[in-house]
Amino acid sequence: MRALWIENGLLRLRDDVARPAPAGGEALVRVRLAGICNTDLELVKGYMPFRGVPGHEFVGTVESAPGYEEWVSRRVVGEINAVCGSCEMCLRGWPRHCEQRTVLGIAERDGAFAEFLCLPVANLHSVPDAVGDDVATFVEPLAAALEVQEQVPIRSGAQVVVIGDGKLGQLVAAALVVAGVRLTLVGREARQRPLLAPHGIASVPSSALAERRADVVVECTGNPEGLALALRLVRPRGTVVMKSTYATVTELNASVIIVDEITLVGSRCGPFAAALDLLATGKIDPLPLVTARYPLEQGVEAFAQAARPGVGKVLLAP
Amino acid sequence: MRALWIENGLLRLRDDVARPAPAGGEALVRVRLAGICNTDLELVKGYMPFRGVPGHEFVGTVESAPGYEEWVSRRVVGEINAVCGSCEMCLRGWPRHCEQRTVLGIAERDGAFAEFLCLPVANLHSVPDAVGDDVATFVEPLAAALEVQEQVPIRSGAQVVVIGDGKLGQLVAAALVVAGVRLTLVGREARQRPLLAPHGIASVPSSALAERRADVVVECTGNPEGLALALRLVRPRGTVVMKSTYATVTELNASVIIVDEITLVGSRCGPFAAALDLLATGKIDPLPLVTARYPLEQGVEAFAQAARPGVGKVLLAP
Repeated sequence: MRALWIENGLLRLRDDVARPAPAGGEALVRVRLAGICNTDLELVKGYMPFRGVPGHEFVGTVESAPGYEEWVSRRVVGEINAVCGSCEMCLRGWPRHCEQRTVLGIAERDGAFAEFLCLPVANLHSVPDAVGDDVATFVEPLAAALEVQEQVPIRSGAQVVVIGDGKLGQLVAAALVVAGVRLTLVGREARQRPLLAPHGIASVPSSALAERRADVVVECTGNPEGLALALRLVRPRGTVVMKSTYATVTELNASVIIVDEITLVGSRCGPFAAALDLLATGKIDPLPLVTARYPLEQGVEAFAQAARPGVGKVLLAP
Repeated sequence: MRALWIENGLLRLRDDVARPAPAGGEALVRVRLAGICNTDLELVKGYMPFRGVPGHEFVGTVESAPGYEEWVSRRVVGEINAVCGSCEMCLRGWPRHCEQRTVLGIAERDGAFAEFLCLPVANLHSVPDAVGDDVATFVEPLAAALEVQEQVPIRSGAQVVVIGDGKLGQLVAAALVVAGVRLTLVGREARQRPLLAPHGIASVPSSALAERRADVVVECTGNPEGLALALRLVRPRGTVVMKSTYATVTELNASVIIVDEITLVGSRCGPFAAALDLLATGKIDPLPLVTARYPLEQGVEAFAQAARPGVGKVLLAP
């Protein structure tokens, strides 16, 4: 089948990738549409030692699911961590941290920039008719955005700052706003951003904010400098949520964290059902984030486009 | 009066430092004995832009306390953060994070390596007769050790690792053990350590531990490499408490924190009353940590001694 392929830091299009075969409990899914995430760009740079088909934000149709035929022909999205169910982390109730996991398009499992992918049936969620394919590709990143709220309780009246007003920052901010949180969105410049404008929120540059005042700062800049800015904005005893993944190492002035007794919380994947619900009810409309669509054959060009600063979501259709 | 003095990264003995004069609500305290802390060594290296008399671990006798004469002649220890009582952090109940604070021997307030010091009367705690001067100098570092438990609830059966078996690591570990926590103490080599041996705990090298298994890791190594080790030992969704302060910047692989959803918690000063109680009841006996005593005139030599690897607590008597 046709697929994008990462190997030794290079991305290329291949026509000779073997169609994946579902293992026990898995479904074969025909990919309908997939989104390019910043993590995909970082994978090419070596963020993880991955070799294979990238892509983890997708919507597809179940082609076959041996033993689970009721799933065939359903339109689905899928949780990206395929887990064992029996390790210590699974048994503790944190299957997304399964010690044996493979991760779609990220670790030991070929991903969604292909005609087909395989995932455990247990990972699949049916997509309601009200949710179009374009919108459905945002279930995975919106779930990751919701993880912030799962991890850090935000008290009423808290001063919350989201830094980074790109795709991830806007999804995180919108998810907080519809949960009733008042917040400030920090970008490189003052400007309207599509997901926040309906809520009367515009980006402001960090220079507009008082330092050491925020109760919670969510770092979504996607670059290593974001953490230092987050530590300047957070108040003593406050919390910094780290969402940005990048391939490089960052420098840390540990004494600020210790003297001000800051809490840092790393945050990754989140709850799919809640994300689907927000999209199905229209509480969050991610479509204004889409800036380009490419056929899979032009996937390498699509990656180049997605890597340009300030570009929104780039979608790929097999 | 005679005092040690830090200026431009140099430590020296002076005989001409003005005796401090108590401001409103403050007491003048004649220093009986003071301990050299790793933070003092880092101050000389430039950890904070401090100029003046260092020293913050002390026991003394109140010489005068205008308006609070009942305190005169009492043997006291003192909380090191002198606070305003009216800023946002004070009003929120975190006076140790007061935005206007001065800190004894660390920030804007001359410290304990001198014949006299001044502190607000509100900062003082009377020392029971059962607690000798040597033991009383450990109230401040033991309080800081107890702060770990104030910030991070440790569930029964949790796997806890304290890395660093120097003075700070031993105090942190002993405070956890007497609170009923079972733990592993990590040092450079397997050996008995005086504060833990009575509890049947010996240091082990980190190579003896499985990686990614600890629920809570407390980083007490005092060097920037400690954080990387802590991140190797903690399990996904676990907590790293950062206690070590040092002047240098450390490198951080942020993606480990994000992918494994680790929580980092900076931890500084802690509760004096609880520390005094543990020392008064003999639950913790810090005296085996004392390795040397010097008169204040030999303070520069005492600092050199305290800076040698593996040296315990060095005390200074004015």
